[in-house]
Amino acid sequence: MLGDDRTLGVLGGMGPLASAQFMLRLTQLTPAMRDQDHIPTVLWSDPRVPDRTNGRLGDGADPLPWLLRGVEGLRRAGCGAIVVPCNTAHGWYDEMQDAAQMPILHIVDAAAAELRRLGIASGSIGVMGTRATLAMRLYQDRLGAQGWDCITPDQREMDNLVSPAIALVKANRLADAYPPLSEVVHSLVQRGATSVMLGCTEIPLGIQAGRALEVAMVDTIDALARAAIAWATESPSRR
Amino acid sequence: MLGDDRTLGVLGGMGPLASAQFMLRLTQLTPAMRDQDHIPTVLWSDPRVPDRTNGRLGDGADPLPWLLRGVEGLRRAGCGAIVVPCNTAHGWYDEMQDAAQMPILHIVDAAAAELRRLGIASGSIGVMGTRATLAMRLYQDRLGAQGWDCITPDQREMDNLVSPAIALVKANRLADAYPPLSEVVHSLVQRGATSVMLGCTEIPLGIQAGRALEVAMVDTIDALARAAIAWATESPSRR
Repeated sequence: MLGDDRTLGVLGGMGPLASAQFMLRLTQLTPAMRDQDHIPTVLWSDPRVPDRTNGRLGDGADPLPWLLRGVEGLRRAGCGAIVVPCNTAHGWYDEMQDAAQMPILHIVDAAAAELRRLGIASGSIGVMGTRATLAMRLYQDRLGAQGWDCITPDQREMDNLVSPAIALVKANRLADAYPPLSEVVHSLVQRGATSVMLGCTEIPLGIQAGRALEVAMVDTIDALARAAIAWATESPSRR
Repeated sequence: MLGDDRTLGVLGGMGPLASAQFMLRLTQLTPAMRDQDHIPTVLWSDPRVPDRTNGRLGDGADPLPWLLRGVEGLRRAGCGAIVVPCNTAHGWYDEMQDAAQMPILHIVDAAAAELRRLGIASGSIGVMGTRATLAMRLYQDRLGAQGWDCITPDQREMDNLVSPAIALVKANRLADAYPPLSEVVHSLVQRGATSVMLGCTEIPLGIQAGRALEVAMVDTIDALARAAIAWATESPSRR
């Protein structure tokens, strides 16, 4: 093993901008005075992983072999835990966890911890994400079991606003992604959401490209970074 | 091999914020419409590498074994080329290149290409960097051989402004790093520099935290990202 069990593995590239933002936020949120205080990390960023939504809901190629290749690369690099800064990829969480031989920190659990950290212990949460993330009920079931209700965009909002905005971020057009995303945030709030889950790692990048919105939002990139920092700062004996 | 010779290896963590910024700029500068257009990348970010300046000029631990461990990790991951977004680490370039069994794209060559891209074909270049980068003459010799003159900060500026500013960036205090860095930029221009090389990957992060300066500057993170994109877009047969 070249690494050690203190090294964090990041299975990324889905998309690559979200991975880079994850690395940035992991660094910024880590209490550190010098390089050596930061978390050793290996980022496996393979943007060639077939589109997760098309793989699940359409006739696209199966992303699982690519995901497992990345897990194997991180295992061979000697990592001690894995995070995947792509919500939709968590549709294959069980298969990745079976192969990993180390913990994979689930992004929805990280998001739930972030809701609690913000003092939002129950109530209606608006959930934005890819079509596949919502169809697989990644958030609805996992947050529902922990006491929150989920409100999701309707079909028209998904087709005309959320899905196109995610594609715009993947094409580096962040400012163009803001108006449709903010329209959906407002719609979810109108329908009773007290906070909004940005449940696709492209969405916070678009939301941050415009002016601040007047509702609590959970950035799942930040949530996953905080979960990784918590893992890294736990004593090894507790793991 | 898990990767393939189209995968870029990034030996990073020196510092981790510069590595994250490299990943961000690599993504933003790549012409892409969707995830799959981006460059497959493995980032080996080990911030535990001993401080390069203390290792070269002081009584600090030797970083070379750590650098070679990262090179080996990227080689085993199947990468086809390596970039190192840390200028000072290029003091060990020859040893890393001997071990790598693949090209390591030299950051000073990338910086020289960026000067040419900006239309700066000759003249006096102000060079900011760590004490070790300047003492090893990484820029002075390599740019000097290609027709540029280098002007460097004086001892007082290094001790009171440049070195403390680099440490501030490593402690995530970017805004505090801006005033001392901009003072040195102005001093180099006063002494005849027509452009300024930000020859430490922490320095552009500090410079960007304040208002724009009125002189051409080369961001060595961007320069290295452009060199990596050029490598990735060359046809394999030409490599």
